[in-house]
Amino acid sequence: MIIVMEKNSGQDKIDQVTEKLQARGFLIHLSQGVERTIIGAIGERTQEDMDLFETLPGVDKVVPILQPFKLTSKEFRSEPTVVQVGSRVIGQGNFQIIAGPCAVEGRDKFLEIAGMVKEAGATMLRGGAFKPRTSPYSFQGLELEGLEILAEAREITGLPVVTEIVDPRLVETVAQYTDMLQVGARNMQNFFLLRELGKIDKPVLLKRGPSATVEEWIMAAEYIISSGNPRVVMCERGIRTFEKYTRNTLDLSAIPLIKQLTHLPVLVDPSHGTGKWKLVEPMALAAVGAGGDGLIIEVHQNPSEALSDGPQSLTPENFNRLSRKVKRLIEALREAERDGEDPA
Amino acid sequence: MIIVMEKNSGQDKIDQVTEKLQARGFLIHLSQGVERTIIGAIGERTQEDMDLFETLPGVDKVVPILQPFKLTSKEFRSEPTVVQVGSRVIGQGNFQIIAGPCAVEGRDKFLEIAGMVKEAGATMLRGGAFKPRTSPYSFQGLELEGLEILAEAREITGLPVVTEIVDPRLVETVAQYTDMLQVGARNMQNFFLLRELGKIDKPVLLKRGPSATVEEWIMAAEYIISSGNPRVVMCERGIRTFEKYTRNTLDLSAIPLIKQLTHLPVLVDPSHGTGKWKLVEPMALAAVGAGGDGLIIEVHQNPSEALSDGPQSLTPENFNRLSRKVKRLIEALREAERDGEDPA
Amino acid sequence: MIIVMEKNSGQDKIDQVTEKLQARGFLIHLSQGVERTIIGAIGERTQEDMDLFETLPGVDKVVPILQPFKLTSKEFRSEPTVVQVGSRVIGQGNFQIIAGPCAVEGRDKFLEIAGMVKEAGATMLRGGAFKPRTSPYSFQGLELEGLEILAEAREITGLPVVTEIVDPRLVETVAQYTDMLQVGARNMQNFFLLRELGKIDKPVLLKRGPSATVEEWIMAAEYIISSGNPRVVMCERGIRTFEKYTRNTLDLSAIPLIKQLTHLPVLVDPSHGTGKWKLVEPMALAAVGAGGDGLIIEVHQNPSEALSDGPQSLTPENFNRLSRKVKRLIEALREAERDGEDPA
Amino acid sequence: MIIVMEKNSGQDKIDQVTEKLQARGFLIHLSQGVERTIIGAIGERTQEDMDLFETLPGVDKVVPILQPFKLTSKEFRSEPTVVQVGSRVIGQGNFQIIAGPCAVEGRDKFLEIAGMVKEAGATMLRGGAFKPRTSPYSFQGLELEGLEILAEAREITGLPVVTEIVDPRLVETVAQYTDMLQVGARNMQNFFLLRELGKIDKPVLLKRGPSATVEEWIMAAEYIISSGNPRVVMCERGIRTFEKYTRNTLDLSAIPLIKQLTHLPVLVDPSHGTGKWKLVEPMALAAVGAGGDGLIIEVHQNPSEALSDGPQSLTPENFNRLSRKVKRLIEALREAERDGEDPA
Repeated sequence: MIIVMEKNSGQDKIDQVTEKLQARGFLIHLSQGVERTIIGAIGERTQEDMDLFETLPGVDKVVPILQPFKLTSKEFRSEPTVVQVGSRVIGQGNFQIIAGPCAVEGRDKFLEIAGMVKEAGATMLRGGAFKPRTSPYSFQGLELEGLEILAEAREITGLPVVTEIVDPRLVETVAQYTDMLQVGARNMQNFFLLRELGKIDKPVLLKRGPSATVEEWIMAAEYIISSGNPRVVMCERGIRTFEKYTRNTLDLSAIPLIKQLTHLPVLVDPSHGTGKWKLVEPMALAAVGAGGDGLIIEVHQNPSEALSDGPQSLTPENFNRLSRKVKRLIEALREAERDGEDPA
Repeated sequence: MIIVMEKNSGQDKIDQVTEKLQARGFLIHLSQGVERTIIGAIGERTQEDMDLFETLPGVDKVVPILQPFKLTSKEFRSEPTVVQVGSRVIGQGNFQIIAGPCAVEGRDKFLEIAGMVKEAGATMLRGGAFKPRTSPYSFQGLELEGLEILAEAREITGLPVVTEIVDPRLVETVAQYTDMLQVGARNMQNFFLLRELGKIDKPVLLKRGPSATVEEWIMAAEYIISSGNPRVVMCERGIRTFEKYTRNTLDLSAIPLIKQLTHLPVLVDPSHGTGKWKLVEPMALAAVGAGGDGLIIEVHQNPSEALSDGPQSLTPENFNRLSRKVKRLIEALREAERDGEDPA
Repeated sequence: MIIVMEKNSGQDKIDQVTEKLQARGFLIHLSQGVERTIIGAIGERTQEDMDLFETLPGVDKVVPILQPFKLTSKEFRSEPTVVQVGSRVIGQGNFQIIAGPCAVEGRDKFLEIAGMVKEAGATMLRGGAFKPRTSPYSFQGLELEGLEILAEAREITGLPVVTEIVDPRLVETVAQYTDMLQVGARNMQNFFLLRELGKIDKPVLLKRGPSATVEEWIMAAEYIISSGNPRVVMCERGIRTFEKYTRNTLDLSAIPLIKQLTHLPVLVDPSHGTGKWKLVEPMALAAVGAGGDGLIIEVHQNPSEALSDGPQSLTPENFNRLSRKVKRLIEALREAERDGEDPA
Repeated sequence: MIIVMEKNSGQDKIDQVTEKLQARGFLIHLSQGVERTIIGAIGERTQEDMDLFETLPGVDKVVPILQPFKLTSKEFRSEPTVVQVGSRVIGQGNFQIIAGPCAVEGRDKFLEIAGMVKEAGATMLRGGAFKPRTSPYSFQGLELEGLEILAEAREITGLPVVTEIVDPRLVETVAQYTDMLQVGARNMQNFFLLRELGKIDKPVLLKRGPSATVEEWIMAAEYIISSGNPRVVMCERGIRTFEKYTRNTLDLSAIPLIKQLTHLPVLVDPSHGTGKWKLVEPMALAAVGAGGDGLIIEVHQNPSEALSDGPQSLTPENFNRLSRKVKRLIEALREAERDGEDPA
């Protein structure tokens, strides 16, 4: 980190800062300009270090130089991570399409839609058993019964299943029934939950919080990995902005950013990311163009009967068209990549 | 709610909507313009209802008319709620200043600062025992030991204590040791935690999430109250915006809004709300001007030694000045209010 | 619009509202619920109408039903607009790639880069002659000399040229030298400039303001068109959010939104939209996936010598790779579209 | 500025950077850590410098150290600036309340409201003659006639008048008729307008743009001052955020920030800052608490007949109550300040 002293701060204050830095094991590079002294502190710094030095007398500001994340960084691991989810693999050219309804609403309906989305191109299943809802008066999910239905659907279709985990007390139970546990946007900084997920042997799908910077999102992944579980898949699902036509603003630039800053795979959720089914297909295709490793899409037999998130759900027919186009685009991108390497 | 049909949508689609509305117990008022049909649906609507009707063929959009909150609303209870916290009372002219360090860092230090802030004008104590930190490599709090220290400080100073609750598994324990449980900004939509807090007999200080609208924040209070605990105090602590000089943007207009929309008292946290101690005093005075029912302020003996949030902590001396000015302002406001009622 | 009365507002207040509505030519549909009266006002409303009724006694809120734009709307013109720019056409399947440096820095350099980008796949040229810069101490453009260079480059390459217009006094001059006038993000609501652009016979490229909603952006187009010039092309270039890694957050969902709400073509500027050249290619490909009608890309012979916006400029080599991939993707999308129509 | 090299970037790249820095007159401090080299560049840097170095091979990022503003900074001038507006003074303890309708709607109405607000405590008048409106179909102001009415109102009341300037071609005309020219939020980065305002001998009220950071806002003031006019007054009027209950989010922390970073006075506009008249009084009082130098408030005889911004306008009666409370609060703050200096 760099410590910028106030204009004309006295030598005693500079000395106090450098002594404290040395006491904490930092190497020091002093840079005395005409008006300002700037102190370079070399060593591993924490947020605490930055906070501490920012409060010392004579200090104007503390500027971080290195990124705060370690285990998720490209520098820790230069090869892209590939995450195995049941029989499927995410990352490094392996593109997965996760589909299903927002919530598991009943056994027969879920088994039906599971079959439909498989037919239409899905490679994994999604469905919520525990639903965190903004209103206490809304449908909250089938809970345990929902998990059993998910497990049965996996049995029948052969597709791995993903579901949301919302309570640290339920981690083990949910891990028993499903192939990947999803951390919802509202829980991205529920650190007690993240730590529990670090202790299990199942992959975690980590959604970006609606007001989380890319750095905070990566730090949430760092929590899980540093707690013992390296199988983390990131999922961009839109951030909160001033725009009102869409439910969220899908930040697709997060895809190349995650790929440049970390070794983790990243999926995109255009259903929550837009909140409107008419925007799902174009944004899914955009996600492919941006280099995403997969999609997670809400599909419902009959969106106008869905118990949650109907307006953003596709019909199986529309989902089929989407998955067909997605595949065509992935091929085209691969060919264009090959052409680049191997001059025709 | 109002259902706006698409331009020139056929009669069959209008009929489908009205039939579905009637089946769900809504009264209907049809409004057929030259180009559009607009259907007023009278009755209690949930988010599900809105979602459902938005997906029906021929529907352009669904516009909510009434606010989704009930138990928190002025219409449910027109009198302002007064919340008893230990020996103190918040609301309806009872202004409280909660002060203390971000985290409880040790017994002696905490007892010392507790005495200091009491001396300097604090009427309640704060201190974190469990700290949710963005980085897994940061100090996470003294946990149980911290709770015991808080209880001892209350014993000695006679001031009620407030601490953050982060894990639904710890609700009972934390409630045993403290007078008010604080839901941090990151957990405002941790609905499983909110429901647990609805089952206890201690007041809850509910911080606004960094990307929560006022409506979502009120809905979080609704979760707690509808689960059985009506003793909720709101706390504005800044929202996330594009501005970078401040850690958050303190939205003081939320104070009069909460007072106009609900019957709940509302505090302000200018320490987190700005992230810079030099901004804490002016924003605390602003919060008084806006009509807040109290403040929660970070104070540390030695901010440059604080294990967290040093840059936003006041020294006891600065806090003393702040609390003196706050009191003077409250008096002036009361006098101005009286003058208004009783024409000179 | 819908006028929602306060709970239990008296009949006299309802009468006052309905009388005022009728005086202004609105048809009225009264909807009296148990607790509230809701008044539907049918007729063309302005923002003034909404403002007025919101201030009447007894009124809780006024809810707009129809969109405020007219000439830009799909309802006014159902066919997509195709805009001719010099020898090129934008819209309805005609995809254009506009490329060039941020600013015209000198005659020889510009003619060189113009040739290079043409070679590498550009179909139109860009270059700033008048630069609006955040700092008064930054390079402000070559002004008139820059316009002459642009005109010469067009002569030599045969490609149409686009440049930014920043001052209503310069509209005529800039229109003489160039084929399309660009309204920069900071001027999107410079209504005096927009009105001047409505009087000329050249197409206008209207960039979205960094904090403009899609609706406000469309209203800015409405200004130009209602002033007499229907040749408007929209350009998404990122909005301002809390994210700091990118200069702006490129909102690609604006592409399908503009296409669903209006008949205008829409381009994407991934250079300003991200601020980082490493993100330009993935976001350009994403823009194609989302259905954009073209791209505007900053390219510089030597980005580290650029007088402005170097960090977001591509080298001609990288631009060449981008345009090759873009073309491949467009083809793939067309094929996928055809497959959908004509079942194999 | 600080230039952070990429991990393990070679010596040749470091040399290239340092040579280029020296060629541009920077002094250099090299700091070679185990993994990274960090180069401190001492000297005056522009945005161009930062852009340039960020694009050099081997450079990871460029971190600015000093603020980009000069003439506005506390370091340039440590004493607070006091701005004379007609017979009134803003700054350093001189608090002004500017009041009047959003737009001048007619001679008689304006003269009437001017008298009313003077009576009720206003010390300056406001009123728009040229209105920049989001919709081309809205009332756009009385233009020249409006200016004449403003001048007449000044004559009669003796209060200085403020009006918005929207077009660089009109600067001289508007300056003739009024005492202070206001730059509206949408024009804060209309640099051609700012430069014209730097050439006149009338004070400028510079509103913050809805998506402008505090730094960009100060840079806009820097434009005016560096063009020759040092009489700039800042005005916070709310920024755009995700919150929907309010028209904007009034960022009161901008007041102490402007006072800590610059020597300029700062006013607050709680009418536009909230968009709701019920929030105007509490936010005006909050602005006083935060240390503002004045207020600008919309007042209308009959808000429900206002041609623009009715919902945020106060009645003269409510304005009277507000100005009475404001005065009481200012006194209380002064007393509290005195008590602090002079121990009782």
